Amino acid sequence: MALRSGVTRVVALAGGVGGAKLVEGLAACLPGGALTVIGNTGDDFRHYGLHVSPDLDTLMYTLAGIAHPINGWGIADDTRQMLSMLARYGEETWFGLGDRDLATNILRTHWLAQGAPLSAVTQRLCARLGIATRLLPMTDDPLATVVYTLEHGRLAFQEYFVRYRWQPTVQRLVYEGAETARPAEGVLAALEAAEAIIICPSNPLLSIEPILQVRAIRQAIMVRRAPCLAVSPIIAGAALKGPTVKLMTELGLRADVAGVAEYYGGLIDALVVDHADGDVRIPQRRFVTDIRMMTPADRRRLAEEVLLMIGDLA
Amino acid sequence: MALRSGVTRVVALAGGVGGAKLVEGLAACLPGGALTVIGNTGDDFRHYGLHVSPDLDTLMYTLAGIAHPINGWGIADDTRQMLSMLARYGEETWFGLGDRDLATNILRTHWLAQGAPLSAVTQRLCARLGIATRLLPMTDDPLATVVYTLEHGRLAFQEYFVRYRWQPTVQRLVYEGAETARPAEGVLAALEAAEAIIICPSNPLLSIEPILQVRAIRQAIMVRRAPCLAVSPIIAGAALKGPTVKLMTELGLRADVAGVAEYYGGLIDALVVDHADGDVRIPQRRFVTDIRMMTPADRRRLAEEVLLMIGDLA
Repeated sequence: MALRSGVTRVVALAGGVGGAKLVEGLAACLPGGALTVIGNTGDDFRHYGLHVSPDLDTLMYTLAGIAHPINGWGIADDTRQMLSMLARYGEETWFGLGDRDLATNILRTHWLAQGAPLSAVTQRLCARLGIATRLLPMTDDPLATVVYTLEHGRLAFQEYFVRYRWQPTVQRLVYEGAETARPAEGVLAALEAAEAIIICPSNPLLSIEPILQVRAIRQAIMVRRAPCLAVSPIIAGAALKGPTVKLMTELGLRADVAGVAEYYGGLIDALVVDHADGDVRIPQRRFVTDIRMMTPADRRRLAEEVLLMIGDLA
Repeated sequence: MALRSGVTRVVALAGGVGGAKLVEGLAACLPGGALTVIGNTGDDFRHYGLHVSPDLDTLMYTLAGIAHPINGWGIADDTRQMLSMLARYGEETWFGLGDRDLATNILRTHWLAQGAPLSAVTQRLCARLGIATRLLPMTDDPLATVVYTLEHGRLAFQEYFVRYRWQPTVQRLVYEGAETARPAEGVLAALEAAEAIIICPSNPLLSIEPILQVRAIRQAIMVRRAPCLAVSPIIAGAALKGPTVKLMTELGLRADVAGVAEYYGGLIDALVVDHADGDVRIPQRRFVTDIRMMTPADRRRLAEEVLLMIGDLA
């Protein structure tokens, strides 16, 4: 595919499960080392003293081929013995840390405490799992997505998303730390060298916006020379997964493909939409295909098509 | 038993597996709240950022009735998924942290990081597990048993004990931090109020000596009004468990029951020895019985006998 599309330096922006599917496809059809993924760390939090990076881990486990095949997050065949003992101690168990998953979080916390930045820690974890794709956190600085809700007031992201299963009504999102967060080592260089920038079908507000809140990243995409293409996380007014439509509606945004196009605006040159939205009118270039990714074959097929579209844009 | 022996405020000094057996027996035959256990923390160490307290946990799991029935340490029916993932990351897995066991270590580390002293953390963990016996670390301060060996030089205790399975030749033991370590909250008051002090059949140098290295604890036992009795960890020149005899020999001590009596000297009023050592001559009072504890019934029987001996001494 790399030869057909002619693209060998690709940067993808991704959140968790939804984005990881396209990332898996891209990694499968690009030559080793061609792909750099910038992952969202707005979901990161400390849980019982452990530094948990849910989106980075979903991307990492997916790229390593060990992700849970149904959930999309966590590790396949993982167990929850630690959690069951935590329950015996009368502690909170709403965050589903698997036992094998714990090794990642323990190592990450340990290496961070030794002074390594998150980007170096992530690189080390990926190397140990034999991952060829370069996975970078958007920033090594704290930048936390905070959710103000009607029912519970201010919620840390994972409380909103996991504890309350994104049911509270969102009034406002705040990306705490955005003013001072700098791109992680390697992020700007990758964007500047990119021949294509792909925004994965992740939640625009919860997964992609935190990345764009790092001012220098948004700036680098705004002044890009390479084409930037997004894959819609919405089909026919329904989210592929999670709270995308519910959240956009609550925040007064148009919650369909046109709304996604409006949200990204000049940041993207093209939007890939599903056949169900084949007649949508958007200011950017529109590509139409089947954007559902049910199987690994779907992921690779969509990735190949996206790379061809990029070739078409360039 | 408490009525027969008349003893209701008992303090036991204990290390890990060997000591925990007698502690279990004592807890079974004393009224709730009568027993205070002072546990060795000279083995404590940080492992991948987690604060591990092997002896406290062995005592706690034993008292909660969830200890591994064969090993004596760790939790029954525990699994090792976290460790297997750590191995996949290419990390060290010589220290056998079980998945359920991890919950204890994660909570302890988290609460310590929040500023609670180890004694308060231990109390909270025990309360959550429904343990009536009071378990106190000897100190909340760092006091680490360090082993200087012929083959590997200086080893942290767990490296010597677990990683190298106590095979290296010991040249010297150092209890780092002993000069400044203070007894944990409650330790001195328990010793002063005790009607009986029992030194469990733990390794004198590796399990009991670290406790006695807290100067105020040794002092409180020296000036005791209550009788102090030790149960021998050696039968007929062989250790009940672990490196007791090997280590005493390497350090030029007499490695038998008489050597144990000599080691404790004036700290104890009596030594409980096995029938196999029934004719040993020691300066303290000698009690002879069957000191092997193979079953829970053995533990309770020996504890009952020890309390009767205490009544006899008082």
